[in-house]
Amino acid sequence: MCELLGMSANVPTDICFSFSGLMRRGGDTGPHSDGWGIAFYEGRGCRVFHDSAASAQSRLADLLGKWPIKSTTVISHIRQANVGAVSLENTQPYQRELWGRPWTMAHNGQIPDVMKWQTDYYQPIGSSDSEHAFCYLLSELRKSFPSRPNDQDLAYFLRTHFESFSALGVCNVLLSDGDTMFAYCSTKLHWITRRAPFGKASLQDQDLTVDFGTETTPKDVVTVIATQPLTNNEVWEKMEPGQLQLFHLGEVITG
Amino acid sequence: MCELLGMSANVPTDICFSFSGLMRRGGDTGPHSDGWGIAFYEGRGCRVFHDSAASAQSRLADLLGKWPIKSTTVISHIRQANVGAVSLENTQPYQRELWGRPWTMAHNGQIPDVMKWQTDYYQPIGSSDSEHAFCYLLSELRKSFPSRPNDQDLAYFLRTHFESFSALGVCNVLLSDGDTMFAYCSTKLHWITRRAPFGKASLQDQDLTVDFGTETTPKDVVTVIATQPLTNNEVWEKMEPGQLQLFHLGEVITG
Repeated sequence: MCELLGMSANVPTDICFSFSGLMRRGGDTGPHSDGWGIAFYEGRGCRVFHDSAASAQSRLADLLGKWPIKSTTVISHIRQANVGAVSLENTQPYQRELWGRPWTMAHNGQIPDVMKWQTDYYQPIGSSDSEHAFCYLLSELRKSFPSRPNDQDLAYFLRTHFESFSALGVCNVLLSDGDTMFAYCSTKLHWITRRAPFGKASLQDQDLTVDFGTETTPKDVVTVIATQPLTNNEVWEKMEPGQLQLFHLGEVITG
Repeated sequence: MCELLGMSANVPTDICFSFSGLMRRGGDTGPHSDGWGIAFYEGRGCRVFHDSAASAQSRLADLLGKWPIKSTTVISHIRQANVGAVSLENTQPYQRELWGRPWTMAHNGQIPDVMKWQTDYYQPIGSSDSEHAFCYLLSELRKSFPSRPNDQDLAYFLRTHFESFSALGVCNVLLSDGDTMFAYCSTKLHWITRRAPFGKASLQDQDLTVDFGTETTPKDVVTVIATQPLTNNEVWEKMEPGQLQLFHLGEVITG
């Protein structure tokens, strides 16, 4: 299995703290040592970093843990391989352009039978079920909508498709175009929204505490989404199986 | 104008030496301070790093100059903005998936009238003429070929299209899917093939000399392509206007 990490914020925010915690699970406090990746949206653009090395030993992961890249939308993934070899092309998150925006998806779980489903516009580069599902999803979106629909129509479409993926196995997903973050829970996904008054948070996976009060302004709203809670002194919301949650600028919105 | 750097090699090779030279031109020995990017192919996958900061001052460029990422195909670009604001989404090289492979292009020059040409399958994310040309090119390729044609057919198609871009202005291009490197010269492009016996090379833009003999095996063949020669003690091949050159595993091949 893999781990997911996402962020939605109303001001460009660095995710170093949460990222450091997640990365420890890649071959150190967790077994997810088969690669990792992270996508940071910035304006209409997006930086994506991938590495097929274990995150706990990755030079790039170490740099990113110290380099405060600020973004309002982040999607990250660390991998324990099931379907598809350990290689750069099988490292998530995956990205494709649709409607002139870079769409990014990270998937936790196994849905090997999705490989039988026909993709057309988008072809997988690697051999993972997750990338195949992503290509199938974007191909279907493209056929159904000539331009980006509103979040409500998109949510309806995505929920239906994520449910059909979940019927094949486990499918926890983070998906975004840098605007809205779509989080779908098949078995496990948690989130927390931090806002004023900000307190201190302590990582579960590393002896590290951060006082968000010293790093934020009173107007900041930052939601972090993860397969498992990353801190041990805060209350995380647990999503229900079958739940699709939308986040925009750090706030929960209805889809 | 911008600068281009490409590499084609028969064994995974690091490009730190050439990259260090190019990066000095980003706001230090050259005026190209409006962002930079580099794509490294690895297996079927590709790592792309982008930064809208001047490369000479970029923390990421500094890391990449020291981190020997080994690849057989590399495309890099540093930008001096003309068409399109200084932003991450306008930073080259651009990438899109076509036929299940990640295609990467870097363009030097200005061809603003290409923005009037219709793209369909691929839509630009940013606002540069270079990305528009790339989306147009891949859209036309996709319409013309259901799967990847051989290099000869591809070369014929690309030459025709690069000529039509050049009729709009300046269009020096590096394009690859990680297999063959296509280099088109509209006004300036140079290349050098290094093979045994390897000698020493000195960068033009930095007080740095490397002895390739200590870093290579006798079977290594490495071609470096750049808008301007990067070293001052070697003889670079100068491409002719209108020339399309193909490279595969470091060797010149006929297209």
